[in-house]
Amino acid sequence: MNYHNLWKKAEKIIPGGNGLLSKRPKRFLSSGWPTYFKKAKGIYLWTLDNKKLVDFSIMGIGTAILGYANSTIDKKVKLAIDKGINTTLNCIEEYQLAKEILKYNKFAQQVKFAKGGGEAMAMAIRIARSNSKKYKVVFSGYHGWHDWYISANLSDIQNLNNHLLKDLKPLGVPSNLKNSIMPLKFNDHEQLIKIFKENKDAGILVIEGARNDYPSKEFVKAINKLKLKKKIIVIIDEITSGWRECLGGVYKKVNLNPDIVVYGKALGNGYPISAVVGKRKIMEISNQTFISSTAWTERIGFVAALATIRFMKKNNVSSKIMKKGKKVIDGWKKLAFKNQLEITTNKFYSMPTFSFNYEKNNDKLNTLFTKYMLEKGYIATNYMFITFAHNENEIKKYLKVCNVVFKKIKQDLSNKVKLKKITSRKMTY
Amino acid sequence: MNYHNLWKKAEKIIPGGNGLLSKRPKRFLSSGWPTYFKKAKGIYLWTLDNKKLVDFSIMGIGTAILGYANSTIDKKVKLAIDKGINTTLNCIEEYQLAKEILKYNKFAQQVKFAKGGGEAMAMAIRIARSNSKKYKVVFSGYHGWHDWYISANLSDIQNLNNHLLKDLKPLGVPSNLKNSIMPLKFNDHEQLIKIFKENKDAGILVIEGARNDYPSKEFVKAINKLKLKKKIIVIIDEITSGWRECLGGVYKKVNLNPDIVVYGKALGNGYPISAVVGKRKIMEISNQTFISSTAWTERIGFVAALATIRFMKKNNVSSKIMKKGKKVIDGWKKLAFKNQLEITTNKFYSMPTFSFNYEKNNDKLNTLFTKYMLEKGYIATNYMFITFAHNENEIKKYLKVCNVVFKKIKQDLSNKVKLKKITSRKMTY
Repeated sequence: MNYHNLWKKAEKIIPGGNGLLSKRPKRFLSSGWPTYFKKAKGIYLWTLDNKKLVDFSIMGIGTAILGYANSTIDKKVKLAIDKGINTTLNCIEEYQLAKEILKYNKFAQQVKFAKGGGEAMAMAIRIARSNSKKYKVVFSGYHGWHDWYISANLSDIQNLNNHLLKDLKPLGVPSNLKNSIMPLKFNDHEQLIKIFKENKDAGILVIEGARNDYPSKEFVKAINKLKLKKKIIVIIDEITSGWRECLGGVYKKVNLNPDIVVYGKALGNGYPISAVVGKRKIMEISNQTFISSTAWTERIGFVAALATIRFMKKNNVSSKIMKKGKKVIDGWKKLAFKNQLEITTNKFYSMPTFSFNYEKNNDKLNTLFTKYMLEKGYIATNYMFITFAHNENEIKKYLKVCNVVFKKIKQDLSNKVKLKKITSRKMTY
Repeated sequence: MNYHNLWKKAEKIIPGGNGLLSKRPKRFLSSGWPTYFKKAKGIYLWTLDNKKLVDFSIMGIGTAILGYANSTIDKKVKLAIDKGINTTLNCIEEYQLAKEILKYNKFAQQVKFAKGGGEAMAMAIRIARSNSKKYKVVFSGYHGWHDWYISANLSDIQNLNNHLLKDLKPLGVPSNLKNSIMPLKFNDHEQLIKIFKENKDAGILVIEGARNDYPSKEFVKAINKLKLKKKIIVIIDEITSGWRECLGGVYKKVNLNPDIVVYGKALGNGYPISAVVGKRKIMEISNQTFISSTAWTERIGFVAALATIRFMKKNNVSSKIMKKGKKVIDGWKKLAFKNQLEITTNKFYSMPTFSFNYEKNNDKLNTLFTKYMLEKGYIATNYMFITFAHNENEIKKYLKVCNVVFKKIKQDLSNKVKLKKITSRKMTY
């Protein structure tokens, strides 16, 4: 069956066609995106009609940090399956994983697990609010779909514009939650200080470990100071950034002092597992509120995460990933210069990103990049997650193809008739 | 290692010791509960020190409807693992599972998936509230840990007493959510009508498909009428009750007209997967609010649920389960009569339950039941989930042991000194 027809059918019975915005075809191409996979291994994907593609894009939206179908991890998981995954009794891997995670998060003494990132963040907020009389949250970045977060747009429909989506309506979120959460520009330490000064009922800060860039020195300093002086509870959302550049979160590299750190995505190499890691004095209140779910005690996530952390440590994954990411970013820069294309690259090496500097045409150029790369057998966008499975040779080959594609894009830039005809990818909801 | 010591260590680094209240040892016995499993197959569990136990209790809190480590389901899952479980592209099983579920839910046209029950209920509430200007929820039963539900106790700390836990503090839930949700006694159709009459801003009804008993005729009639006349959005939480007594939810057996039905637990035979199933006109608004999570697009849950539904249909699982459940309930009644014990049994056959009728001593007798059964090699409580894997022979053997245990309990009842010494299991948080 034609991908497009299958997706149309899916959209009829699943709102949006699937459960994750980031895997919807229109976010890559207005048409022609392969949409479904049949098989995956390493960085290779096979489409339903058995075309082999190389993934230099989102790699399971950052989950497949070791690559698809890593046999070391999968072997452990399959052994666990044979011995039962969800019984009346508990599996010891939940305890073992908590112990393992604490090794790499010295600030913390306790861990609670969930399966997804969104629910782990909801849990972190519940725990933080249980500890503070100041229930208002100041946030920067993307933190999931739950009410506590989406309520940001109840007071101003633009509050989530730079963090999630443009002008998102907070449909279905109780209006009573208005003004319970306030947006903050990442790395704007002056705004940070101002918000907490002006809002005496703000007691919780939530930021991402990193997205395009690391937290700046001034930002870190301001946060650590606020925490000390005003007893602000600091939550670092490392769901996307965690485990990529070190064992644990980016907060370690920049010397942030968190109360709670949240992990997800890469933690289980694609198997759903998330963790809320925190200081005992903050976490232990969980026993007085109700946070419990049957799915969370299922075994696979724990087994996969244990194996993934051990694999990452043994194979020095994070430093390799950073080197590879730097190679991609440097490659893009060099090739853009060579082809006289204006681009800007990011600084968070493990998630290489570039943006075209052609104002109104940027969306079209991004779309063209994906289109041309796909014609050469690559799944690629202007942002990517680099993984352990991207080897030197594949990066070299990829950059060679980027060179050809950049050249074509440079030519297209002077062809206004052609540009006009391009229908851009849609990054909105 | 001694179970108890291991659990104590787990409690130090995981608040509560694990992620699910229902699997905590104190809910079964004050001491001596095996707590951890090493291996599981069918209805058999092996403890860390290789003791074999037979599970006539909660069977993975209702998830293992076909029994532990069912090879038909596990084979499909392992094949999927070999082909990649979480990539940049989508897996077709998400679409296939939506199609399969809709076959058995004729009222519905759309499905959204999650991994856990709690998050699926939060999704259902978001969707319902997006469709209604009357955001207040009337509920009966247990529906998870999220703010929308726990906020019930903001106005009265006893609101969740008969649905979840006694006097649960709604710690960490924003007080602005006060009065956004109101409790209803299951099967009290008069209270139902009264609440909606008196609360003009109540627009959503949430009940469980079944817990101890089916919805009564009067209850069903009142709900269907409310829905028709007041456009109340009706959500049936079939996370626990679904797929046990028919393919789909209990709502089908009692002719309830829902707008949304939520499934979890048994749907994937232990692999985390949950589904929000609803009318298109209600569900499609999901595209205008933001409900999205990376973990939800992971493949295993879909593959497991597809295989589980097909297995259930092929093997006529639900009618077999009901017959087996009836056998257990009838057996308990007969044995109680024989041993002159006063018990009451429930009517929802697929989740057999009995309660002792000895007032203050009930907790102690329940504990004794579990204690004596464990001495005979059974994991057993006064409530259980019966599964496809409980065969006739095992039920017979179990009832024989119940006879012995009932006899002992009858003797203990007259021994006040002994009863006094018993420390009860703790069903509270």
